Amino acid sequence: MAGNTFGTALRLTTAGESHGPGYVGILDGMPPGLELSEADLQPDLDRRRPGQSRLTTQRNEPDECRILSGVFEGKTTGTPIAFLIENRDQRPRDYSEIKDKYRPGHADYTFDAKYGFRDYRGGGRSSARETSVRVAAAAVAKKLLRERWGVEIVGYVKSIGDIEGRIDDPAAVTLDQVEANPVRCPDQEAASRMAELIERMRSERDSVGGISELVATGVPPGWGEPVFDKLKADLGKALFSLPAVLGVEYGAGFGVARARGSENNDPFEMREGSVSTRSNRHGGMLGGISSGQPIVLRCAVKPTSSLPQPQDTVTRAGEPTTIATKGRHDPCLLPRFVPMGEAMIALVLADHGLRQVAVSDVLG
Amino acid sequence: MAGNTFGTALRLTTAGESHGPGYVGILDGMPPGLELSEADLQPDLDRRRPGQSRLTTQRNEPDECRILSGVFEGKTTGTPIAFLIENRDQRPRDYSEIKDKYRPGHADYTFDAKYGFRDYRGGGRSSARETSVRVAAAAVAKKLLRERWGVEIVGYVKSIGDIEGRIDDPAAVTLDQVEANPVRCPDQEAASRMAELIERMRSERDSVGGISELVATGVPPGWGEPVFDKLKADLGKALFSLPAVLGVEYGAGFGVARARGSENNDPFEMREGSVSTRSNRHGGMLGGISSGQPIVLRCAVKPTSSLPQPQDTVTRAGEPTTIATKGRHDPCLLPRFVPMGEAMIALVLADHGLRQVAVSDVLG
Amino acid sequence: MAGNTFGTALRLTTAGESHGPGYVGILDGMPPGLELSEADLQPDLDRRRPGQSRLTTQRNEPDECRILSGVFEGKTTGTPIAFLIENRDQRPRDYSEIKDKYRPGHADYTFDAKYGFRDYRGGGRSSARETSVRVAAAAVAKKLLRERWGVEIVGYVKSIGDIEGRIDDPAAVTLDQVEANPVRCPDQEAASRMAELIERMRSERDSVGGISELVATGVPPGWGEPVFDKLKADLGKALFSLPAVLGVEYGAGFGVARARGSENNDPFEMREGSVSTRSNRHGGMLGGISSGQPIVLRCAVKPTSSLPQPQDTVTRAGEPTTIATKGRHDPCLLPRFVPMGEAMIALVLADHGLRQVAVSDVLG
Amino acid sequence: MAGNTFGTALRLTTAGESHGPGYVGILDGMPPGLELSEADLQPDLDRRRPGQSRLTTQRNEPDECRILSGVFEGKTTGTPIAFLIENRDQRPRDYSEIKDKYRPGHADYTFDAKYGFRDYRGGGRSSARETSVRVAAAAVAKKLLRERWGVEIVGYVKSIGDIEGRIDDPAAVTLDQVEANPVRCPDQEAASRMAELIERMRSERDSVGGISELVATGVPPGWGEPVFDKLKADLGKALFSLPAVLGVEYGAGFGVARARGSENNDPFEMREGSVSTRSNRHGGMLGGISSGQPIVLRCAVKPTSSLPQPQDTVTRAGEPTTIATKGRHDPCLLPRFVPMGEAMIALVLADHGLRQVAVSDVLG
Repeated sequence: MAGNTFGTALRLTTAGESHGPGYVGILDGMPPGLELSEADLQPDLDRRRPGQSRLTTQRNEPDECRILSGVFEGKTTGTPIAFLIENRDQRPRDYSEIKDKYRPGHADYTFDAKYGFRDYRGGGRSSARETSVRVAAAAVAKKLLRERWGVEIVGYVKSIGDIEGRIDDPAAVTLDQVEANPVRCPDQEAASRMAELIERMRSERDSVGGISELVATGVPPGWGEPVFDKLKADLGKALFSLPAVLGVEYGAGFGVARARGSENNDPFEMREGSVSTRSNRHGGMLGGISSGQPIVLRCAVKPTSSLPQPQDTVTRAGEPTTIATKGRHDPCLLPRFVPMGEAMIALVLADHGLRQVAVSDVLG
Repeated sequence: MAGNTFGTALRLTTAGESHGPGYVGILDGMPPGLELSEADLQPDLDRRRPGQSRLTTQRNEPDECRILSGVFEGKTTGTPIAFLIENRDQRPRDYSEIKDKYRPGHADYTFDAKYGFRDYRGGGRSSARETSVRVAAAAVAKKLLRERWGVEIVGYVKSIGDIEGRIDDPAAVTLDQVEANPVRCPDQEAASRMAELIERMRSERDSVGGISELVATGVPPGWGEPVFDKLKADLGKALFSLPAVLGVEYGAGFGVARARGSENNDPFEMREGSVSTRSNRHGGMLGGISSGQPIVLRCAVKPTSSLPQPQDTVTRAGEPTTIATKGRHDPCLLPRFVPMGEAMIALVLADHGLRQVAVSDVLG
Repeated sequence: MAGNTFGTALRLTTAGESHGPGYVGILDGMPPGLELSEADLQPDLDRRRPGQSRLTTQRNEPDECRILSGVFEGKTTGTPIAFLIENRDQRPRDYSEIKDKYRPGHADYTFDAKYGFRDYRGGGRSSARETSVRVAAAAVAKKLLRERWGVEIVGYVKSIGDIEGRIDDPAAVTLDQVEANPVRCPDQEAASRMAELIERMRSERDSVGGISELVATGVPPGWGEPVFDKLKADLGKALFSLPAVLGVEYGAGFGVARARGSENNDPFEMREGSVSTRSNRHGGMLGGISSGQPIVLRCAVKPTSSLPQPQDTVTRAGEPTTIATKGRHDPCLLPRFVPMGEAMIALVLADHGLRQVAVSDVLG
Repeated sequence: MAGNTFGTALRLTTAGESHGPGYVGILDGMPPGLELSEADLQPDLDRRRPGQSRLTTQRNEPDECRILSGVFEGKTTGTPIAFLIENRDQRPRDYSEIKDKYRPGHADYTFDAKYGFRDYRGGGRSSARETSVRVAAAAVAKKLLRERWGVEIVGYVKSIGDIEGRIDDPAAVTLDQVEANPVRCPDQEAASRMAELIERMRSERDSVGGISELVATGVPPGWGEPVFDKLKADLGKALFSLPAVLGVEYGAGFGVARARGSENNDPFEMREGSVSTRSNRHGGMLGGISSGQPIVLRCAVKPTSSLPQPQDTVTRAGEPTTIATKGRHDPCLLPRFVPMGEAMIALVLADHGLRQVAVSDVLG
């Protein structure tokens, strides 16, 4: 009911607040026998953590994650895997003003409306710091996907503001290309201009939005369920469950609205003995089930709501006022969004991979 | 696991195929005491059913729905409500060719990849006819929303191909305006041009996509859960669970990607004693929780995949071939999409309304 | 929330009331490729249906079940299977008195307390007729268990009142032995005395309780989950979800309360190359996971609450009164309980069989 | 799927192993506004923890529980509450022998059969130490039940071996009476003899089983769902999910098997203006829904499987051998079972209390 669990065959439950003792996650449903240690989690945690580059918030969190259960002698046991990420750089004083004022674009007012009161320290449960434990758990899902099915997930920044990166083939982008710059745009030239724009936003005490594109390759055909749990539906939910996402599309996306059927359909053809499609406007999913083609998704991410410049708002008591956020914030969320988006896709794909085992391996 | 159930507090389970005996739905979790009869379901079923106008497929289905349980002496009893919609106009012979050929844009191949074989008659389980029972169940959800909380849901066609309707205030569009023309675009002049375009598509044996916008007004602030079950996430899943949807956005949607925070944030202000926002770029949800402002969503719907013109494809055996669909199909899905989209929004909102009762009414 | 769905990988959702149009069930999660027709369901439906022998209620219901979906060309397709059992012998007038009086031992009062009012015709949703659709769905589960894993489930009556059948080896009892008499006790001599007792109860306008024992053989070791979804826990829930069950035990059951560890533990030993146990006081489950030994359970079933003799009670308005139930009722529930108990065990075992596939078949 | 989550509206997820770093639990769905601190959890943790008296194992665990989230300024916030109980007195060397031998009555073999290997240290995930985090979470549920609905849950030991305590009125037993002796039997004279029996078992290197009776008073009529999620079904599952429980019954329990309907039915009568029953053979539930009478349950708990005397068994390789458990164990599980049983009942009742809010408070 309260919605802190995600997934069906592979289920992640999270808890924790931005300025409490830390975050906890429990990943239930991982099969036994996967080699796993904390070292598997840290690379993605480092990609997500604050303070990783000049472009991001300077909150200093190492985001070290302890595995508390579910691993024995270096392998998963089949029992639930618990993650603990302690908060280190809490500064409650930074957030004292937001106790009584509603920050525009944030969940302060809606939390009060929902619960009657809220943990106002740094956004409490609504803070994007909650995604740290998702990223940790998803690192396990990514490893399962890679070792069991050869699935790889790579996300990147496609555009920031008016600057768009040129990506000829989404399915060919590599993690190395993405990590070659702090913006995480594989078009290195565009990435430089994006970095400049982000710096300018910081100096202008403003923020800017963008689009992240995410690609999963190697997904076998047949994953996803035909009706409510279509793969596109579960991916859509997963990505919309991330903070700041206002739009999700896959394949030709909103472009289909202007297209004709005769140009939008991807003809089937044989390639290396397998049923394939000539093009990939369908984004790797037909009828909500994977087609074997690369799964390509895009998320629209809004500009950071927290701004150091004064914005009009009201107090809890209903008095008009202004607020200028004093905390440490990213002037653009996109670079750190990439590992979050990948994480949610990994959780969905691993879940559906496990679900498909129970469909295809039973009556043979 | 198999994903034929949707919702948490209010759960809909469906079964049925396009050319089997019929469709069944079970709606579990409706509170007792709501006045209900089959007559409450028929208006939305009529808006969704085939053959309703020249613009849609001519399959002749009355889509009459029997309520088999959960209602006694004209009121819901609190026990599950079962719906039965029998198929009448089955013509299996129309579909004999698709037994061995994969229709581009359809789920034929992915079903085979998933299950090893498929009920090929008219798409079987992947047919959009499955949404009939969703629409029936959602009519109950709409009634609960209206009577208990004053929530209204209105959807309409915003664009088809290059023709865009002009909608000054999404929250002011009425059902009467939408139903005034068979296209379901409240801009009557644009609707005429859209109708012409759809007719042209039919004569050219082609199809065309479009965008539907859907609005929920009267949703109290506080609905939705903070993390995975954000209202936007559950709405996203709901809409992506509909056939042909390749993109979903809310509020400013993909437009946020080019925006700055200083222009994107909606300042809070008091209006009639309540916390409100000066604008509604946030689309009625902040932190995934309803803000009290109208919830505004848009779906990108692809052009119908079934085309009467030959398209390249392969057979089940992997031989290249062409297929021209001979069945009865809509040249544009948008007019009939509107009640489907409304239905999914109604199911999500009623679910979250009931969930919020258990949050807010317990400790007072 | 409203609890009309059962299971995790294999999920059954039911709807329907005793004197409404009929019962509906949707079984979701059956793998594709199992041969299936209505003829597979009828034998167990006939074992459960009223009017099958002189010992049971004379309500005349054929309990014919239509399959409305999920089967194509004689095989399951992997999509949900819907069942419809129409009510034929409704006699609402028989039940007019219970509209305003609370029958002792029945759910009349508790339904009113829960919902504010109730469908009072024949118990409405609380009627044991709801189990008909469980039995239909479980016939599919039984077939999957038999064909995929060689699991067989046989239940029987162990005692009625003071008469106890002698069963030397529960795992050796066959369906033929059980069905050789209308009581369903494989000790044919005891069965005769039980039949006499039941007849006497009817003539004395009374009823009597008993114990049913149920055995599953061929369950591979490793089914069940270690913590909350222990196999014994899910079986316990399943059996307690049946009407009239006030006690469930497995293996040595309540007998363990007087035992010492040195005599209660079943020593492990090798048998035909497999780890086995010398005895089966553990009832086939250790740590909540199947051990490969026969699973043996017992249910205590209360005497029918409906009695043709006057019983003290109160009206809805709180006035003291008496009620003598005029409807058609079984003087002993045990003979018809057997297929219900088997059905619930089949649903649980098939569910856990499918769940285990996703554990054991993933990383090899 | 993997079954480490329990509940519907109130959900507990646990992780952890006996000799890993510790146990984690996440309780999701607690309403906001309940006063809560670690001090609320410790009393029940102390009743469950090892080393509490001469009668229990001497493993020395303080079982101190940290709350990591979901509480702010002394009150629950409505967000998930995470619990962390670190293991302190791990002695892996004690358990080296069980790596390769299957302990009779334990889950060693079934875990190997399920997962292919296991964390063999102290039973790993199958250890009853997992219940510590259930007891912590249930202390929150108990507080909600008490403060919101006036529900109290008291469990006690009814019998150990052949010694049965005399309890005139289960609903009148108080926590003080239970805690007056280390056996937790409110019949103080019987408790003394039970303590002697337990001491004798220890000296004889044996163990003994018993029965625990558990009572919930103050439960309003109307809790529980009519079909699968009957209150008795969810309670049955909850209690069978505890280690060592081989039987569960409520009210007259297995006694109904010998009873007649005319003596088993509890007549309704008015008491203080409310519908009540003259007796309580129905154990507080009718049709699976609470009747307003005390809920009375009993669990059969087997003798401890771990014995310091040699028992026949086999090795992982299938060689016959013997094993005498050298670890620290309770010669009788009953005294420490009481808080575990209460905990599971509290989780079920709080869950159904919250579920009923969404039924009764909506259209009322």
